[in-house]
Amino acid sequence: MAKPISFARGAPSLDIVDVEGLKAAADRAFAEDPAGATAYGTAIGYPPLRKWIAERHQVEPEHVLVTNGSMQADAFLFDALVEPGDSVIVERPTYDRTLLSLRNRGADVRMVELEPDGIDVAAVERELLAGTAPKLAHIIPNFQNPAGYTLSAAKRERLLELARAHQFTIFEDDPYVALRFEGSPLESMLSMDGDTVVYASSFSKTVCPGIRVGYLVGPAELIARIVKIATSTYISPSMVSEAIVYQFCISGALERSIETVKHALRERAKTLSEALRRELPDARFVEPQGGYFLWVDLPRGTDVGALFEAAAERDLQFVKGSDFVLEGAESSLRLAYSGVSPEEIEEGVGRLAEAYRDVTAGVAA
Amino acid sequence: MAKPISFARGAPSLDIVDVEGLKAAADRAFAEDPAGATAYGTAIGYPPLRKWIAERHQVEPEHVLVTNGSMQADAFLFDALVEPGDSVIVERPTYDRTLLSLRNRGADVRMVELEPDGIDVAAVERELLAGTAPKLAHIIPNFQNPAGYTLSAAKRERLLELARAHQFTIFEDDPYVALRFEGSPLESMLSMDGDTVVYASSFSKTVCPGIRVGYLVGPAELIARIVKIATSTYISPSMVSEAIVYQFCISGALERSIETVKHALRERAKTLSEALRRELPDARFVEPQGGYFLWVDLPRGTDVGALFEAAAERDLQFVKGSDFVLEGAESSLRLAYSGVSPEEIEEGVGRLAEAYRDVTAGVAA
Repeated sequence: MAKPISFARGAPSLDIVDVEGLKAAADRAFAEDPAGATAYGTAIGYPPLRKWIAERHQVEPEHVLVTNGSMQADAFLFDALVEPGDSVIVERPTYDRTLLSLRNRGADVRMVELEPDGIDVAAVERELLAGTAPKLAHIIPNFQNPAGYTLSAAKRERLLELARAHQFTIFEDDPYVALRFEGSPLESMLSMDGDTVVYASSFSKTVCPGIRVGYLVGPAELIARIVKIATSTYISPSMVSEAIVYQFCISGALERSIETVKHALRERAKTLSEALRRELPDARFVEPQGGYFLWVDLPRGTDVGALFEAAAERDLQFVKGSDFVLEGAESSLRLAYSGVSPEEIEEGVGRLAEAYRDVTAGVAA
Repeated sequence: MAKPISFARGAPSLDIVDVEGLKAAADRAFAEDPAGATAYGTAIGYPPLRKWIAERHQVEPEHVLVTNGSMQADAFLFDALVEPGDSVIVERPTYDRTLLSLRNRGADVRMVELEPDGIDVAAVERELLAGTAPKLAHIIPNFQNPAGYTLSAAKRERLLELARAHQFTIFEDDPYVALRFEGSPLESMLSMDGDTVVYASSFSKTVCPGIRVGYLVGPAELIARIVKIATSTYISPSMVSEAIVYQFCISGALERSIETVKHALRERAKTLSEALRRELPDARFVEPQGGYFLWVDLPRGTDVGALFEAAAERDLQFVKGSDFVLEGAESSLRLAYSGVSPEEIEEGVGRLAEAYRDVTAGVAA
């Protein structure tokens, strides 16, 4: 058996996690604030971390809720805002867990095509003019999961105009923002209009996923409602985890960790793009400027289900494009390069290209 | 202003939390299993801790789910089992957060009187014979919150018989079991019948609350269903917190911590009981054999709402009995002795007695 290679999971490899920094942060968390780290907190999260996040986003702490990972933040937000039958606009393709979470709540999910510069805002407008009155539009603005695309500045402005005119909330889901390794950062929609936007992010990609610390920033009255939901769900998230993240942030370890991660991701994305161009010239893709993911469109008619099987036979994993949509995307796939070394990427793309040749030969035969 | 004294919150004081032990456990968690502690886990929890818990309860790991605190475990269990309109039997009085969580789900909550040896099983049987078909009976068997009472062995057996005959699940909610400082431990209902019982417990009282680690033990197919709910809620609980708890447990720190906590609780409970007998002879209560709480019944007609106000004027907090029932318990209160020193207990009972004299003098006037 070949060594398994996974382009499937959007998670960092251990070599880009600052384990020593985490250990030191844990020491300081218990030494400097033993009461705060070990006692029941409240559902707002660990207050010093809440304040630190608020300062980063230039809001008052009342606008921030720190949660057990940002998926939990999404769940609370949906609990607060989405009733069965409510329309929610999402990108097509979008993060499979968000899609599932919305469908589990009985939301009327309206997928709008994602373009390389972000969601098709003209299509959003047509949807609104046709009578859809969404509660929420879920947008992953930077290095989107699964596509790796980034929403342009012009489209950010247009989306905000549409949201204000049609009175819906933009849920700006932004876990990858810190991981830009090419190009210039764009202003968040939150900073452009704090009344229309609820913002979520996470320390999963900058500290580590296993610490499970994410957060929401939004209007104070909405955050207060969500605090009540969170209180009756779990009293408080892990104060130990949040105190460790806080110490990690204020010590400078966070900035160093982000540099490490960006450096590795830049190299991995470049290796992946070059290998795909060389080994799989049929693949169409946009070379990412940040984040974890690269979306590949194969020629129409390519059976990615069969490709998935052929790749699995070669111990290669990826996620089928169809997992990120309600229907279609059958010739597309998502490659995550966050957890694989350049050598594994070279080897993995070789296996993918072989699998592709098998599958397309089978079709031609 | 006098120094505030709180008999309100069921939480340990910092002096009985092993902060050094936690710091050492965190060091080992990152050193010995950096990948396991820092990577995304899955919703089952940190596998070594899951296995450790399973061994303690003599079940296979498939019967265990480790969660972000045991309130979160309750919420998942209710999500899996309780639909709006479903009947759920609970003790009267019972933990206010459980009551709220069930009412938020639209459950038909049936409170059955709690006696000093546990829930009135004859009243449970009458409820069943009258046609109530509960999904669940929520029982806190040891050192109940808020009453401090413990369910007798005979009643445990009778409850299981009733549950089997009427096909409902017993939710054995047991966070205080390790904190017995007098008398002999009783067998858990889980160990008597693993098909009829879902068991929850927590490390909040034996490690610390801020770590937020609790767990469920139940039938494997139910646990598998709850794993799905947990996955779509938060992917995984904090692996960092759970790896720390695991290291704390296997190092022997857990057993030492439990001894420290029990020693302190024994002294606090004794001090509280003696002070009440001396300063407030109208108080009726059962001296607890473990746990955090002592339930006080005052003479019928005593206005505990007014007592609460009069105590607050003296910077003394407690929780009114009425918070733990749907109606009634207006002459009762819960005193938590877990977070207060013997000196604070003496002083606090003095203030409570003064407040009581004020309130009863007012009534007589």
